[in-house]
Amino acid sequence: MNFKGFHTVSVRDFCREDIEHILDLADGMVPIARGEKSSNLMKGKLMATLFFEPSTRTRLSFESAMLRMGGNVLGFADPSGTSAKKGETLADTIRMASAYSDVIVLRHPQEGAARLASKFSDVPIINGGDGAGQHPTQTLLDLLTIRKETGKIDGRKITLVGDLKYGRTVHSLTYALAMFDVELTFVAPPTLQMPSEVMELAKQMGAKTRKANTIEEAVEDADVIYVTRIQKERFPDPAEYQKVADIYQITPELLERAKNTAIVMHPLPRVKEILPEVDNTRYAAYFKQAFYGVPTRMALLGLVTGVLE
Amino acid sequence: MNFKGFHTVSVRDFCREDIEHILDLADGMVPIARGEKSSNLMKGKLMATLFFEPSTRTRLSFESAMLRMGGNVLGFADPSGTSAKKGETLADTIRMASAYSDVIVLRHPQEGAARLASKFSDVPIINGGDGAGQHPTQTLLDLLTIRKETGKIDGRKITLVGDLKYGRTVHSLTYALAMFDVELTFVAPPTLQMPSEVMELAKQMGAKTRKANTIEEAVEDADVIYVTRIQKERFPDPAEYQKVADIYQITPELLERAKNTAIVMHPLPRVKEILPEVDNTRYAAYFKQAFYGVPTRMALLGLVTGVLE
Amino acid sequence: MNFKGFHTVSVRDFCREDIEHILDLADGMVPIARGEKSSNLMKGKLMATLFFEPSTRTRLSFESAMLRMGGNVLGFADPSGTSAKKGETLADTIRMASAYSDVIVLRHPQEGAARLASKFSDVPIINGGDGAGQHPTQTLLDLLTIRKETGKIDGRKITLVGDLKYGRTVHSLTYALAMFDVELTFVAPPTLQMPSEVMELAKQMGAKTRKANTIEEAVEDADVIYVTRIQKERFPDPAEYQKVADIYQITPELLERAKNTAIVMHPLPRVKEILPEVDNTRYAAYFKQAFYGVPTRMALLGLVTGVLE
Repeated sequence: MNFKGFHTVSVRDFCREDIEHILDLADGMVPIARGEKSSNLMKGKLMATLFFEPSTRTRLSFESAMLRMGGNVLGFADPSGTSAKKGETLADTIRMASAYSDVIVLRHPQEGAARLASKFSDVPIINGGDGAGQHPTQTLLDLLTIRKETGKIDGRKITLVGDLKYGRTVHSLTYALAMFDVELTFVAPPTLQMPSEVMELAKQMGAKTRKANTIEEAVEDADVIYVTRIQKERFPDPAEYQKVADIYQITPELLERAKNTAIVMHPLPRVKEILPEVDNTRYAAYFKQAFYGVPTRMALLGLVTGVLE
Repeated sequence: MNFKGFHTVSVRDFCREDIEHILDLADGMVPIARGEKSSNLMKGKLMATLFFEPSTRTRLSFESAMLRMGGNVLGFADPSGTSAKKGETLADTIRMASAYSDVIVLRHPQEGAARLASKFSDVPIINGGDGAGQHPTQTLLDLLTIRKETGKIDGRKITLVGDLKYGRTVHSLTYALAMFDVELTFVAPPTLQMPSEVMELAKQMGAKTRKANTIEEAVEDADVIYVTRIQKERFPDPAEYQKVADIYQITPELLERAKNTAIVMHPLPRVKEILPEVDNTRYAAYFKQAFYGVPTRMALLGLVTGVLE
Repeated sequence: MNFKGFHTVSVRDFCREDIEHILDLADGMVPIARGEKSSNLMKGKLMATLFFEPSTRTRLSFESAMLRMGGNVLGFADPSGTSAKKGETLADTIRMASAYSDVIVLRHPQEGAARLASKFSDVPIINGGDGAGQHPTQTLLDLLTIRKETGKIDGRKITLVGDLKYGRTVHSLTYALAMFDVELTFVAPPTLQMPSEVMELAKQMGAKTRKANTIEEAVEDADVIYVTRIQKERFPDPAEYQKVADIYQITPELLERAKNTAIVMHPLPRVKEILPEVDNTRYAAYFKQAFYGVPTRMALLGLVTGVLE
């Protein structure tokens, strides 16, 4: 596929070949992302970050990517004081930003905002998360992390833990992983189970899928343990939340049941899903994962602006 | 006039020759503003954007201008958390910023703020809008739009529509247009008419001016239809607002009465003054107008910092 | 000492030799800070400004320093909308930022935050003020100002005026000055006196210290009059505050009692501690002092990232 000018709205817009191409390029970007190698690939190019909802991690990693490639950045970090307040439509804000920049990263609280934006932009849109919708660069960096930290994606056994119902991240990741030859295990509280249509689709695409009853069982065989935040707001009863939070917490003790080579991932921010005691163990891959956001976004920015092929 | 070090407070500080010089330079900046040509004119220079009131369009177009010319940007997008909250005077904030930058763009809710700031700054101040006061770069980009999109300013018939009483934009534009050989038509709700002193001054400067009774009549002969936002807050009665908003709305039907070559302009953001159906017609010049803010601000930034002459 | 990778938490982490080395380098940076000389020292390097509490002056002078040296900047100016709101720990936010940048400037409302941050960062932390704790670059720029504006630090008679009890700035400055051969005079309202342990330590380090009873007496012999803001909130009775504010105000009349060569300093923002009438006298050094923040921060940024030695 020709990426130049492409609007990155959903990971579903990519085929496996596209994804592998992005990951290959991202891999090559790692030394630039670390600041070990300098780059002028984006010299003269401007990225607009339009964050209608704050997300420090997503914004800063996009900005780090753009700046480390020699480009520059403008935009806003939250919607207070934008023209949206004066009644401007998203379409008009996007038209404005597309007149002032070469690529737009859009974060928006409403599902479908990125697709809509892509209809009014002269420059490529990258969806930086639109509500319950998509967050394709998160999925791509998750895949890069698996590849870099376990050596490959094909053949991996991946366990997804936590809020699998509302977690946007895990739906997209399940879809993307299903393009590869993987075994997926889901473990979640009864009220936060993976939607059956997502599981069904993954199965149709060729992934082996199963539900585990306990977290202990789910980690035993896994190469990757992917943990998501369980939000207190999902539970009417705080005691109920506390019980679930305790059961699904990743601890050093739990990890003794896991393979030596297993890695723990988390899209961050984490609250209590992973104990700080895990941070310095060989399992912890979640901080590296945050770092991999930079080379991944570099690759995509380079592709859609046409400086990479 | 020698622009180096000049404080751009009001369009009235310029004569016609100055304006034409800025527009000539701005015209030459268009390929850089589009990102088609790279520039290092502002290399090593810093612009401070001090926005005591948010204005995304103004701020981002200034930042795009500065960055595309190879300069850099620092500042704040809104006043929350500035020292103004601790009781610091504008004079002291300006002195600080002038120690940290080579040019200051000031947006402030109070009329006269830019003139005051210019008294305490070691570096050029550019007024990015001060309350009911001035917004000179808006006027300059309006003029550039007329010149680029209709071929020239002299000889043009220009209709101004909407809130002509409180709209800062239209007063400065009327003054600036009166330096050229133009015919001005004003059409506004009875309570939002162009102040007679502005009309009087334009007449004295040699412009032909008239009031139209209906919007239909006002668009018929026009080369340029300049529309401004009618703010709901101006009307004690919402029904009264709605009536006026309907009457002065630009629609494809209305534009059938206009010349084929007429253009519709708007300082943006627009709400309902121009129907989205107009966006894809040959008349719509308001998005291009927003873009012309970039080369216009490039020219001015270059002149006042002395990198352009 | 080897500065590369060093976390700058407190001025107490430096010895006199370290401080003099920073000031020497800062002195050499002045032409770059003024924009008279261009620099590419920081090319390819990124500074993250994490301001969990706004401070425009500190943030903008760090950004000016980084940008004028050819580096780049990302971060946030206030904590609204950071992951801290979602319950993320400071440790995790620091880990994230250290994956995206080469040096972190941290401003935080809680004392001890910078020390904590330094434990979790792969890149050097610079404390940009942590509550009642430390603000080492303020102290360094104060020292540079004394050296540049009076010729030297050794041998100087320095009077500290205002809130000497809660003023973080004056405690660190007293400590740093005591490394040099200075005479310190303290003058403050009865309830805002310099803590005896700070005075005691300075004395032990070899500084001559005394308390003055009146501001008139305190300015008479001084080479440097260092003024701090007296905060209204410290006084239960507004009338009591007003009386104190009047007594400790710096006026042209008061300065007639001072030496011709004396300078007045203030960390800014000032409110009414120094009358505007003083601004244009030969005594006023507080705006230059704000400027000296730029070369001072340049020197430190260069040292901790290893581009300067």
